[in-house]
Formats: sequence, structure tokens, C-alpha cells
Amino acid sequence: MRTQVGIVGAGPAGLMLSHLLHLAGISSVILESRSRAVIEATIRAGVLEQNTVDLMVETGVGARLKREGFNHHGFEFRFGGEGRRIDLHELTGGRSVTVYPQHEVLKDLIAARLADGGEIVFEASDVRITGINSDPAIHFVRPDGATETLHCDVVVGCDGSYGPSRDAMPEGGRQDYVRVYPFGWFGILAEAPPSSEELIYARHDRGFALISTRSPSVQRMYFQCDPAEKPEDWSEDQIWAELQTRVGGNGFRLKEGPIFQKNVVPMRSYVREPMQFGRLFIAGDAAHTVPPTGAKGLNLAVADVFVLSRALERYYRDGNTEGLEAYTATALRRVWRAQHFSWWMTSMLHRLEGASEFDQRRQLAELDMVTSSEAGRRTIAENYAGLPLG
Amino acid sequence: MRTQVGIVGAGPAGLMLSHLLHLAGISSVILESRSRAVIEATIRAGVLEQNTVDLMVETGVGARLKREGFNHHGFEFRFGGEGRRIDLHELTGGRSVTVYPQHEVLKDLIAARLADGGEIVFEASDVRITGINSDPAIHFVRPDGATETLHCDVVVGCDGSYGPSRDAMPEGGRQDYVRVYPFGWFGILAEAPPSSEELIYARHDRGFALISTRSPSVQRMYFQCDPAEKPEDWSEDQIWAELQTRVGGNGFRLKEGPIFQKNVVPMRSYVREPMQFGRLFIAGDAAHTVPPTGAKGLNLAVADVFVLSRALERYYRDGNTEGLEAYTATALRRVWRAQHFSWWMTSMLHRLEGASEFDQRRQLAELDMVTSSEAGRRTIAENYAGLPLG
Repeated sequence: MRTQVGIVGAGPAGLMLSHLLHLAGISSVILESRSRAVIEATIRAGVLEQNTVDLMVETGVGARLKREGFNHHGFEFRFGGEGRRIDLHELTGGRSVTVYPQHEVLKDLIAARLADGGEIVFEASDVRITGINSDPAIHFVRPDGATETLHCDVVVGCDGSYGPSRDAMPEGGRQDYVRVYPFGWFGILAEAPPSSEELIYARHDRGFALISTRSPSVQRMYFQCDPAEKPEDWSEDQIWAELQTRVGGNGFRLKEGPIFQKNVVPMRSYVREPMQFGRLFIAGDAAHTVPPTGAKGLNLAVADVFVLSRALERYYRDGNTEGLEAYTATALRRVWRAQHFSWWMTSMLHRLEGASEFDQRRQLAELDMVTSSEAGRRTIAENYAGLPLG
Repeated sequence: MRTQVGIVGAGPAGLMLSHLLHLAGISSVILESRSRAVIEATIRAGVLEQNTVDLMVETGVGARLKREGFNHHGFEFRFGGEGRRIDLHELTGGRSVTVYPQHEVLKDLIAARLADGGEIVFEASDVRITGINSDPAIHFVRPDGATETLHCDVVVGCDGSYGPSRDAMPEGGRQDYVRVYPFGWFGILAEAPPSSEELIYARHDRGFALISTRSPSVQRMYFQCDPAEKPEDWSEDQIWAELQTRVGGNGFRLKEGPIFQKNVVPMRSYVREPMQFGRLFIAGDAAHTVPPTGAKGLNLAVADVFVLSRALERYYRDGNTEGLEAYTATALRRVWRAQHFSWWMTSMLHRLEGASEFDQRRQLAELDMVTSSEAGRRTIAENYAGLPLG
């Protein structure tokens, strides 16, 4: 079996890359360890930057997103009992975000790839990458037990934090940057009408909370918790009381309803450098993890493969390897800015371990400074709506 | 002895307050523990915000400042071996800062107060404040040993971090917010020409450095150090090597010369709340300390007494106490924003204790984000040049 670009992982990075390469006339095959049904049912966050939306629309996979996604022109910071709006649209000259869950993006990309004759091997197991210096190949086992080797010019690891690609780079030439946060997010899905037309990022002395929407009848909410918290230890009443305390004030109250899903999300920041070694490239969560506070995870994955697809196009068209050689440097600048932004949003809104009373007052002053000045609001808005893909 | 406003301390806050009250027809007396000669020779930093300059000029004490001060339209961040300019003038619609040492400000204010018939008792010792709930008085000993009591309507403590005013508030009704930084600044004065036309704030893996100017032949420079560092342990060669390492790059080198003063400055953030109790008000360093990174100390002192002088004027003119009652809330909003800004500049530029490699890369990404976007540069510029006194 042979293709030009062998892709490990059918998440946002792998599927979008395969789609972009197809449009440029470059063949690819995706190997994915999970089944299509599992991928299409795994619920993740879903705040799409303007860049991500534009790219999907321009490349023909944005029709349902435009129809069913919720376009948000702003969001609200809540602290000290009041709300202050960040008008993304006005502050960025017309940019906005779209709330459209990640698994819906994946459904659209899978459907497009298959309709275009793309090859995705689901439930591929024992994936191993070899020959990254000269003759790359991906070895795997099909769901029927048959072993197979995919030969390719280039391997792109889009296999997330736990896939084999990251570890296929030689230990001596790589460096990992890690930060683990001493808290997690307690997430719920509830059958309730939206409490707010836009997302709410709340800072309270008891900790952070995020109010998001999924549909007119289903809401997604989170509150900062101990990362070891057990979802089953919390009753519905306790959860609503906690959320109301953190977000309420000045007459504002959340609309409640039956909670049908509870989970605890850990928080970490991670960067692998470099993002390329020989003929192996990594993209998305295989190369970096951000805490979800900045809503950057999926968008960074798409930005990575946008850069990489352009570089591969240039390579196959002209034999020019400059773009490929610059991939790490080009992608990392955005990655580190997103890491900073995600850390900033996290540290500005969360109750921090060991924070003194000075630190807490300073945190409130920071929110005051950021939301009171046009320059402060614009810094938040530009980063949240997403810097241009360039 | 009797006056309307009794002022403890002849620093920037006390002198400026006395000056502003005089212009409003309100009498005051200043008690100061040091001699005039000591005050006029004690060298402190001196970056004056636009507000401070404007206030001095508008109230007739800005002539020498305008003549001898250095007006700076920008400053430079240096990191990763290159410089990025913050154009204060352009980013704030014409605001700028003026480098004019604090003791020169004090000389001008003392001269003005004395010329206007103001009373400053230098070398006043054993200062005690009583009757702050009803019948305020300041008891003190004159340099000749005579004991005296100054009766007044209101006492204003402008006596810095170690004066008696802060402690004259009842323990039960006050709260202190403190943050001590695990580093200090090693400061030098050197006989050398300026290395740069504008101030340089440098971030290096070895730590922070600040390049400032005092005159065409004397330069002020600092580098981050252990707060327990002993100035005498450092030779001139070692100091220059350290500064060159932290600031140099891309062909830039500092101009060296004989070092004639060395000292180590500790770094802390402090806020006392409230800033008023009964008929006692505190202002400037008596109420708050900022790390010097944001150049806010003197400017905050001036902003405090500007607010207070307006409130006292209203009180004496109309008997209206609203301004006096709102003093804490009005002053604290600026104080906390300045605390955040000073903490931000400090944490963005200093080598932080226990910082991981992730933290260091994030710090560089933050400087990149702040200096690469107009909104980021403007946030820095607006806060550095100073928010309007309002």
C-alpha cells in the first residue's frame, strides 16, 4: 500500500489535512485507531475561530456549520457580580466565533473525505512508524487482523497526546515543555434553555465557571474543581448551587434543568519541539495541548495543518522544501502565542493555588484593566477570535 | 499651633498636597523627620507620567522640569537579542513620560512652598497622631527639643512605608495586602554617555535589566539580583559583564564608564485598605508600595493627593463630604490597576523563581504577543504613560 502522505489519526488535524491535500491533488491515507461511530459520538468543546470557519467554508465543508452553528459576536466576562462584554465583532473589524461541536466538524470532514474517494482506515491497531529519515512507512493491523504497511513520502502524526507519532522522534533531538495546573473543570450537559445568548467566562472567589450552549435545549457548563473530584459525588442540587454562586449576581440566574452528563477534565499545557524530524511531522494535539480556557485546541490543530498543507503543496509542485523546513518555526510562533493566551485566560479567571489576598485583588484589577480599556478588550478579542492564518 | 490640614511627610505626596491646597486657599503645615539637605540629596527613580508633568506645569512648579527633564516619546523592550519599541506618543495620542529625578521634583516643590509662605518643619521627631475620630492633632518635637502640638481639621499621612500614620489607624478596621518578590534590583550610577536615547527594559534568561539615563554624562542602570546581594561583592568588570550580557545582542553594546554608586533595592507590592479612617487620610507610599518596574511609585503618590486635594477643596468650599468619603474607593481603583501593571511588567521581564522551561517560553511568547500587536503595545503604553487623573 502506498500514498504520498501517510496520516496517523482522524481527528480535526488529520481529517482537515487529508481534505486540504486532496484539494491540492496530493494523495493521503488516514489510519485511525477508533471506530467511526466512536469518533462521531465523542463530545468535545467546539468554539471555532473565524479562521477555522473560513477555511471550512472556502474548502467546501462548511455548509452544515453555517446552517447549524451558532455565530457569536461576543462573550461576557463576569466578576465582582457584574458582566462585561467583549464585542469580538466590533473589536476585530468583523471577526467572530462559531459554536459548533468538534464531533460535528469531524462528521462533516469524514463525510467529505469519503465522498471524495479518500481512504480512512478506522480501527487500525498496533500502529508503528519506521524509516522517518529516508523511507517512511506506517505499519498497522486492520480490524480483520491483517497486517499491512503503508509506504509514503511523508508521515504526519495527528494522533493526539497518546498516539505513537510523538515518540517516533529520536529522544536526543526533542524537548517537551509541560505545565500541569492544580485544578480541573467539572463539566455538565443539561437539558435546559440557554441562560445567555453568548458564552460567559466567570471569575469568582470560589473559582472559575464557564457557561456555554450546545443547542436551544441542551447547555454545556463547567466549573473549576479539584482534578481528583469524582463526578458521582456531586448531586444535581449541589452542582446548580455551585454554578449559581459563581455566575450569579445583579439579578442574573442560570436556567436549570436535568443534568444528563457529568465529567471532570484535567488541565495542562504541553509543547513538543521540534514539530518535525526527518520525514515525520506532527500536528495538533500530537504536538501541543492547551488548557481549554482559550478555546484554542481545535483551532490550533487546523492552523498547523493549514501551514503544513501549503508547505507540502509547494514541495510536490516545485520540489521546494523551504516551507517544510520552516514548518516548526512557522507553526510554533502561533502555538506559543496560543499557549500564552490560554495560560493568561486560565490564570486571570481561576482561583489559584496558594494565591494570597494580594494576588486575588490583583487578579480583579487585571480583569478591570482588561475590560475597561479598548486596547485591553481588543487584545482579548483578537486572540480569542484568532490571529489570521497568514 | 493650628492649621486646616496637618501633613506628615515632605515627600512627593506631602509637598504636592500642600502646594495644591495652598492654591485652593487651604492652609497646611508639613512635618518631616529628615532635614531639607537629606531630602534634596536622596536619589530615587524619576520617570514622570504625563499626568504628573501636566499637574506640575499647570500649578506653576514645572519650569525647571520642562527645561532640564528628558521628555521620552517611547521606550524599548529587549528580548531574544532584539529590541522592540513602544511608541508612547503615537499609541496614546500624544502622551509621553519625562525622566526627571524625584529629588529634583522635591527641590522644586520645597522651593515653591517656601516662596509661597508655606510651613515645613524639617527634622521633626517623635511624631504622634491623636484624635483622628474627632479632634485631630499631631504631636512632635522640634529640632531644638521643644515639644509642640499641631491641631488641625484633618491629618494626611504622606510619611512613606515606615512613618507613624499607617499605624495610627485602628487595627480592627484595616487590611494589608502584601507580596514580596524573591529578587531585588542591583542599581548603579556610572559616569558614561547614554547608551540609548530611550529607556530599555530587557528580559534575558539570566534576568531583568533596566537601562536609564540621568544626564548626558551620568547613567542609571539596574539588573535583577538576589535581594541579599552585597553591592561591595561586585567589581566594576563583573557588573558591566552582567549588564552587557543581559542587554546586548545584534551589535548593541552599552557604553561603559566609572561606577560611582552601587545599591540593592528590594521589591515588594503593598496596599493598605482603607486609605481613610475618621479624619486621618493616607497617601502615596504610606498607603501602597509598587515594585519599580512600572515606574508608578511617585506618580501614584501625586494621583492620590490630586484626588484628596479636590475632595478637601469641596469640603472647605461647600461643606460637602462626599469626595472625602469616596477617597478610598476613588484612589484604590487607580492603585490596584497600578499594582497589576507593576506586577505584570515585573513578571513579564524577570527571571522567576522556580520557573519551568514552559514558563520561560510562555514569557517570551507574552512579550512577542504584547509587542507584535497594536492593541498589546497600546495597553502597555496607556498604563506606562499613565491613565488620566479623571
